[in-house]
Amino acid sequence: MRVAVIGATGYTGAETVRLLLGHPCVEVVSVTSDRKAGERLDVECPWLATDAVLEESGRALERQDVEYYLLCTENGRAAAIAPDLVPRARVIDLSADHRLKDAAAHAQFYTSSPGSVSDAVYGLPEVVDCEAIRAARLVANPGCHATAALLGLMPLVRAGVVSGTPVLDSITGASGAGRAPAEGFRFSELDSAVQSYAVVKHRHRPEIEALAGMPVRFTPHLAPMARGIELTAHVPLARAMDRQALGELYRGAYHGRAFVRVVDAPPSTKQVLGSNRCDVYADFDEHAGMAVVIAALDNLVKGAAGQAVQNLNLMAGLAEETGLPVSGVWP
Amino acid sequence: MRVAVIGATGYTGAETVRLLLGHPCVEVVSVTSDRKAGERLDVECPWLATDAVLEESGRALERQDVEYYLLCTENGRAAAIAPDLVPRARVIDLSADHRLKDAAAHAQFYTSSPGSVSDAVYGLPEVVDCEAIRAARLVANPGCHATAALLGLMPLVRAGVVSGTPVLDSITGASGAGRAPAEGFRFSELDSAVQSYAVVKHRHRPEIEALAGMPVRFTPHLAPMARGIELTAHVPLARAMDRQALGELYRGAYHGRAFVRVVDAPPSTKQVLGSNRCDVYADFDEHAGMAVVIAALDNLVKGAAGQAVQNLNLMAGLAEETGLPVSGVWP
Amino acid sequence: MRVAVIGATGYTGAETVRLLLGHPCVEVVSVTSDRKAGERLDVECPWLATDAVLEESGRALERQDVEYYLLCTENGRAAAIAPDLVPRARVIDLSADHRLKDAAAHAQFYTSSPGSVSDAVYGLPEVVDCEAIRAARLVANPGCHATAALLGLMPLVRAGVVSGTPVLDSITGASGAGRAPAEGFRFSELDSAVQSYAVVKHRHRPEIEALAGMPVRFTPHLAPMARGIELTAHVPLARAMDRQALGELYRGAYHGRAFVRVVDAPPSTKQVLGSNRCDVYADFDEHAGMAVVIAALDNLVKGAAGQAVQNLNLMAGLAEETGLPVSGVWP
Amino acid sequence: MRVAVIGATGYTGAETVRLLLGHPCVEVVSVTSDRKAGERLDVECPWLATDAVLEESGRALERQDVEYYLLCTENGRAAAIAPDLVPRARVIDLSADHRLKDAAAHAQFYTSSPGSVSDAVYGLPEVVDCEAIRAARLVANPGCHATAALLGLMPLVRAGVVSGTPVLDSITGASGAGRAPAEGFRFSELDSAVQSYAVVKHRHRPEIEALAGMPVRFTPHLAPMARGIELTAHVPLARAMDRQALGELYRGAYHGRAFVRVVDAPPSTKQVLGSNRCDVYADFDEHAGMAVVIAALDNLVKGAAGQAVQNLNLMAGLAEETGLPVSGVWP
Repeated sequence: MRVAVIGATGYTGAETVRLLLGHPCVEVVSVTSDRKAGERLDVECPWLATDAVLEESGRALERQDVEYYLLCTENGRAAAIAPDLVPRARVIDLSADHRLKDAAAHAQFYTSSPGSVSDAVYGLPEVVDCEAIRAARLVANPGCHATAALLGLMPLVRAGVVSGTPVLDSITGASGAGRAPAEGFRFSELDSAVQSYAVVKHRHRPEIEALAGMPVRFTPHLAPMARGIELTAHVPLARAMDRQALGELYRGAYHGRAFVRVVDAPPSTKQVLGSNRCDVYADFDEHAGMAVVIAALDNLVKGAAGQAVQNLNLMAGLAEETGLPVSGVWP
Repeated sequence: MRVAVIGATGYTGAETVRLLLGHPCVEVVSVTSDRKAGERLDVECPWLATDAVLEESGRALERQDVEYYLLCTENGRAAAIAPDLVPRARVIDLSADHRLKDAAAHAQFYTSSPGSVSDAVYGLPEVVDCEAIRAARLVANPGCHATAALLGLMPLVRAGVVSGTPVLDSITGASGAGRAPAEGFRFSELDSAVQSYAVVKHRHRPEIEALAGMPVRFTPHLAPMARGIELTAHVPLARAMDRQALGELYRGAYHGRAFVRVVDAPPSTKQVLGSNRCDVYADFDEHAGMAVVIAALDNLVKGAAGQAVQNLNLMAGLAEETGLPVSGVWP
Repeated sequence: MRVAVIGATGYTGAETVRLLLGHPCVEVVSVTSDRKAGERLDVECPWLATDAVLEESGRALERQDVEYYLLCTENGRAAAIAPDLVPRARVIDLSADHRLKDAAAHAQFYTSSPGSVSDAVYGLPEVVDCEAIRAARLVANPGCHATAALLGLMPLVRAGVVSGTPVLDSITGASGAGRAPAEGFRFSELDSAVQSYAVVKHRHRPEIEALAGMPVRFTPHLAPMARGIELTAHVPLARAMDRQALGELYRGAYHGRAFVRVVDAPPSTKQVLGSNRCDVYADFDEHAGMAVVIAALDNLVKGAAGQAVQNLNLMAGLAEETGLPVSGVWP
Repeated sequence: MRVAVIGATGYTGAETVRLLLGHPCVEVVSVTSDRKAGERLDVECPWLATDAVLEESGRALERQDVEYYLLCTENGRAAAIAPDLVPRARVIDLSADHRLKDAAAHAQFYTSSPGSVSDAVYGLPEVVDCEAIRAARLVANPGCHATAALLGLMPLVRAGVVSGTPVLDSITGASGAGRAPAEGFRFSELDSAVQSYAVVKHRHRPEIEALAGMPVRFTPHLAPMARGIELTAHVPLARAMDRQALGELYRGAYHGRAFVRVVDAPPSTKQVLGSNRCDVYADFDEHAGMAVVIAALDNLVKGAAGQAVQNLNLMAGLAEETGLPVSGVWP
């Protein structure tokens, strides 16, 4: 496969490149940065072992030899460029442009224009129909919190046992904000600090609600780590379920999936660091009548670049786990 | 005031000593450690600037010159020693022994014996009647999560607007587990890691429920920092309230209190690090019909040693803020 | 004492304010920020418990009621404003403007203009003549690495036993770079990262050499923490000295000083966090014929704001430890 | 290749398993733990994606189907078991038992018995003769600090320009101490803390000296991160060299090597995290007449497990980079 990564020097773009460099079936034919075009990628990103040179995105988008474009661009950019690309190449959009089908919801949460590729497929392989991903011209890669939330919630939703508004607290690392912002993300100010942001209105909430088909209460929190999401869903249930019953429900839902593992102890974000895995734990608080489901993933891998490569694998007809790490980097 | 700190080398005990060393009206007449008796305290705790020598607790408990005993002991110990102390000295119990009045609840959450001093006062000065603390022979110093939860919840509870089970996620630093445990608390395994523990049954839950007078859903999480709690309460409300109305409710509830500040932006644990302050933020999610209240404090100060000194001040008839830091150490 | 803090919202300025708020003999009559004038200080710095409002520095410099100006300004600014201030108030310059007496050295290491107040006193109380500080119109507050280096080196230098170029590696936290820079100081990029900067030419080197009277080899390193310096000096000695002899030399040199403690085990930066102490450890490597001296301090306290308050105390005729924390905040 | 990992649940052993699970030519036929035999490895190490069951080491050592034993055992154990293994299998010893040829040096630095396999080869492929590694029955895998030090020093040593005792400060993460110790390695006590240990006598010093052929001054420091070494060598030179000349010397020395990269800016430990690379930077301080060389690596990969797999590749006649990550996991 001949792949171009548009926007290769941000956190998501660089992580995508890192995974693709180790992928046995991929040739990275273009990596782009409009600000750093002409420079070697490993000067801007010294952790990457490559001698690739950054190209202007305009030039990369005109290439005829690219089969797959992975768009790691700021919101609004993919919406602008995707319509020209989809007739001649397949596209994975890692930005938010094509995630929400509902234009009103998009307008409520984003200032940028939404994507107009009407048959974009929401690329959460363990939740949506994989055949649709395999056939898609454009895959909308899910948000990181949304990935954790949906992997945690959907087995209960599909079992029809949810009886009230799920409450979700999601604790994430600083890389979720991307490489651009700096003010407010200085090391000295985030170290030894936990705080919330977007307390009552975060952009990943409508993504979750669109697939879950119900409203949710959602608040994200920033913890002093670079990577990782630990999302906890408190879900009112129509009937009491013990931990074993929940375990069976979840194991059944994810049977045979390489990247979702149902675990017997609350997962640490560290056990999935650098891996494309999401570990899910489910327990029942009989006192409150709620299931408590915890999902842990690496926001830059299963929450972004890794999931994009998983979608790429599906689109290319490969096994979805091809070239993707399953074990975490620990300690 | 002549004060003894029983159990001076644990996190809570040493923090208590640190605060008392800077207190203008306190003489620390005894610091104890049964394992390290005879050693200088600053050998075991090199951050403390003192030439005090550690004493065996048995000897310290027999002293006739102590007016206040601060018990920083493992659970069960204060229950055993307090009955002999209260006739001749006043006691602040920083362990959990005297927190729960309900023996059945104690038995459900603790294996150690409960305290038997029947008129113990729960020492949360911004929530309970301060006159009771001023007059108490024994004050039960609240748990760290319970302090954050109750400071966050009680204005809504007392306003009578809570219409369903509050859901609480509390994110805390590793010092909350104390200095004793090590297995499971190694730096390399907690760094870059967030994970939950005691997912459906944590000991601070019945403390919260006893004062709130309602069941709550509570899950604690461990973040990679030494100190701090950021607790989020999602509270179903009987009627819609905007952020301004909530702000007024909270400002009214804490008017004139030195240590609870109602803030206009989600507080970071870092802004209260080393301080006896709890910063509280309240917002309303109209979408879900829930108030979202966030309380941030330093688990070793307002959540333990600082609150104990605040109680000590009240018991001694001093202004409650005497000798206590109000500004945080930042960055 | 009536004190103004010029530049109160940077790391050093805000830390100076924090310490002064707890000082029993100080009234902070002005805190300034040219960008944020008119705002409350606790909006910009929510960790500070104060209702002070930020003032423009121009206005603050014209006040007639200020006895002491503490200049927490970018390099070059103090040089410009100090000449007008010293006739009518006393000044502590926390910037680098007045540190180097040698104009050529200043020009080699700084692009900004040097200070022209000719009788500025270098304010390192444990090394220079305290009488000079007490009498000074302007005190140049030392650099953070220079403070650690000189407290570590001077006893050997003054004993006349140094026989070759000392080699110094200094490991520091991210706050040393100040609040201004952001690019390069994002949390995600410094977390889990140690790296060096200014490998062969750092600005604190000529400060060290000016007082030590000899060249030194100096390299600073950045560790993933907000505060702290651990500086190691490898010092070739003219004659073998065991650890005990070194201990005696150092204890003698710092006898009676509140803020330098000679310790028997390698100090952690954490044991002096938030404190104005510098802990010094000295050992001898007979194999290499070198003393190995380690000094640990908090770069924002003993390395900046705390040392400024120590100098203020001396200038005001107070005991040097007045209002300054001696114990560290730990864990 | 059929490989057994003896001691698979410690930091080094588990990291070895992680790398081998992703290696295209390796079958891991046994993973051992004497304390946890019979348990699944992914219960003890939930970051590993494997269904392997832990075996007692005694049983694993009797297997006839193992071609390579990787010994990730405490010091002294490999010395005891290697003599029986080498006649029938090839061995890589990741402990210190076979590193020092000089029995007196071993006795001075270790209390455990040294290895007795006389033709053990010191497995630092970029420094020693790779043919010897290819042919070895037993490879002694180098210490983590020694790897960084030797990769930094040897080009200068071999150029014959070193004119005095090199001074080395090495800053490392907490995983270097292994998974066993806990007291002293609690998160709360190492977070925000830098401190030195083994100030004048660390076990990796004689390893460095044996290959460098000269004494060195060496002090290790512990920084608040899980992984990584940043080692700085200050090397007195017989003649002045500018940065360009040093760059040429180092580029020449490591020409064609996959895992040592000579870089133009001081490397961060983060850029090699999870990678088998060592990045080396060399500069000259003309003021002090010393080269300043900085080497950064991941102590668990190039400093332990990755280097072991590199040696395994050489022993097996494979390209040395087979199955090993070259890019770092960042941020």
